[in-house]
Amino acid sequence: MCKIDLSLYFNAVKTRSIKVHCLTNTVVQNLTANMLLAAGAQPSMSADISEVEDFTASANALLVNLGTLTQATKLAILAAIETANKEGIPWILDPVFINRSSERLIFANKLIALRPAVIRGNRREISSFGNDEQKLAKQTGAIVVVTGEKDTITDGQKTSTLATGHPLMASVTGIGCASTAVLAAFVGLGGPPFDACSAAVELFGHIGGKAGKKSRGPGQFQINLIDELYQISQEKAPNAALI
Amino acid sequence: MCKIDLSLYFNAVKTRSIKVHCLTNTVVQNLTANMLLAAGAQPSMSADISEVEDFTASANALLVNLGTLTQATKLAILAAIETANKEGIPWILDPVFINRSSERLIFANKLIALRPAVIRGNRREISSFGNDEQKLAKQTGAIVVVTGEKDTITDGQKTSTLATGHPLMASVTGIGCASTAVLAAFVGLGGPPFDACSAAVELFGHIGGKAGKKSRGPGQFQINLIDELYQISQEKAPNAALI
Amino acid sequence: MCKIDLSLYFNAVKTRSIKVHCLTNTVVQNLTANMLLAAGAQPSMSADISEVEDFTASANALLVNLGTLTQATKLAILAAIETANKEGIPWILDPVFINRSSERLIFANKLIALRPAVIRGNRREISSFGNDEQKLAKQTGAIVVVTGEKDTITDGQKTSTLATGHPLMASVTGIGCASTAVLAAFVGLGGPPFDACSAAVELFGHIGGKAGKKSRGPGQFQINLIDELYQISQEKAPNAALI
Repeated sequence: MCKIDLSLYFNAVKTRSIKVHCLTNTVVQNLTANMLLAAGAQPSMSADISEVEDFTASANALLVNLGTLTQATKLAILAAIETANKEGIPWILDPVFINRSSERLIFANKLIALRPAVIRGNRREISSFGNDEQKLAKQTGAIVVVTGEKDTITDGQKTSTLATGHPLMASVTGIGCASTAVLAAFVGLGGPPFDACSAAVELFGHIGGKAGKKSRGPGQFQINLIDELYQISQEKAPNAALI
Repeated sequence: MCKIDLSLYFNAVKTRSIKVHCLTNTVVQNLTANMLLAAGAQPSMSADISEVEDFTASANALLVNLGTLTQATKLAILAAIETANKEGIPWILDPVFINRSSERLIFANKLIALRPAVIRGNRREISSFGNDEQKLAKQTGAIVVVTGEKDTITDGQKTSTLATGHPLMASVTGIGCASTAVLAAFVGLGGPPFDACSAAVELFGHIGGKAGKKSRGPGQFQINLIDELYQISQEKAPNAALI
Repeated sequence: MCKIDLSLYFNAVKTRSIKVHCLTNTVVQNLTANMLLAAGAQPSMSADISEVEDFTASANALLVNLGTLTQATKLAILAAIETANKEGIPWILDPVFINRSSERLIFANKLIALRPAVIRGNRREISSFGNDEQKLAKQTGAIVVVTGEKDTITDGQKTSTLATGHPLMASVTGIGCASTAVLAAFVGLGGPPFDACSAAVELFGHIGGKAGKKSRGPGQFQINLIDELYQISQEKAPNAALI
């Protein structure tokens, strides 16, 4: 059982046709799009500078994932963030592998000054910013989400921790990236971002555990995770209130 | 049951080792390649201007899908279309999301003047060209295929409509894109393109329905759709005639 | 049963957190990352010239796959190989479709002069270098692996042949590419590359056969292949010796 009534989130995502524009790495684009569709949201993925402004301006949230970064996508990311900030569209940063590339870390440090609504990474990635998650949240004004065996959500003052999920989550590429896209859809609803992050983290811990029990390996796990997300997104809300 | 004898198409695709060169978006490349292989066709995906002429010239059909377009892929698309038109190889346009980007719509309008054999899109995409499908077909000389809950195929004079498939088809990214690649393989056989489009649309309605009944969500659906396509492609033709 | 004790390889890959940096085509990036994770290895995929040196220098092996090559990735490949050779990191060449593009063949011929540890391709690709596999091995100093219905491994003098696997392996895109990434992980352990290649080839023949028996089509086959790889990678080594 989830503590948070997720059906309110899914109802709102579907009723309002929430769109998430994803500037994300080519390894996980397919899984990310399928996770958003399973959650009832509308994904788009264009990463060319001539198009990102149109796609971002018509979306409810922007996902910026730093995997498989190129010179061209760096420029597209900056243009998309500028549009998002101008239009009041929340954007979420996923600083993939900034612990493995010095150039990428420099770029990520530039981005956190541009007021992301949320920064989501694993322990090594978040630590690469040089501070713990509370300090990073205070410094940037973002909600910081650290995922791993234990998940932490903080706005710098309030901090909550969950220890759910399943070990197979670490054996499929892009589960963190794709779950951040669904988190972006929840944040795109416009409610308090701390609550939206908590709902998304609880959601993935919950469906990760269910999918894990049904799977003999990471192949089945990926399929089952999509289907658990789809199933839970189809549940009717106990009341009609939208978030 | 399908009205069209699909085994004739699959037999011909396999016997003649039909090759489809795909200039398609990075989100759906994997599914597209797997759908073509499941249908017995040979996919290739290179999108660099230094290579697209060789790949196109040795293929039987060219797929041009506008998702995740870049400046570089635009140039490669134009070079590949020039080769296809020079060599008499049919090319198929899938104008993904031209309703979301003004730059992409401009490019798509440029492409429809270059004599595609088929234009395949959803209702919003086709409407973005400013006409209904019949007028678009007359204007361009292409077969126009509009897919959605109801599928329409028209050459501007003759129009046929099918209402098959399964709701889960809309919950997996790239089903439309990948089915257009199989349509391209059928068109690449060289018979009447209206018939080839009808066969492909009927095929996907048929296997979509079968896969949908076996699936609890979009994860299983994607796997089952590939396997239904593979199964039907393996059926023996009742007679040896090739198309 | 496998003749080679694969558990020794998997134990070493996991214990030493073997990292494989993959410069590979966008069609198969996801499957490649998932295969490496299922084998207990750590994948990375960045292909930008500003990042490949950092990623390569911190990896145990470098995979160079020529699918969906661009001008930018060509430069990144050359920079990564230079780093690998300087740091003594083995690199593996997968010359995808050099039989379909004259520009790509020219580039591949340039690369084999840069001392790859292994060249892995199908019969048509390997033949495109203008020699049989034994001569290619002697000429380059690389182990040459030719995969297909029959798999051949040669260092130019010693040659071994296996005829295992399953016909469905040819109906899923990127099985060859992804298995080469796992081969790279084994080579990255630092033992004799001929033995590492033999272990990887035997592994995929073995799990291909097992996955094939459980699958009604290529959709299920891909999932089952990942899960068979995961299962076998979890088996305990009968003794604690590392390779």
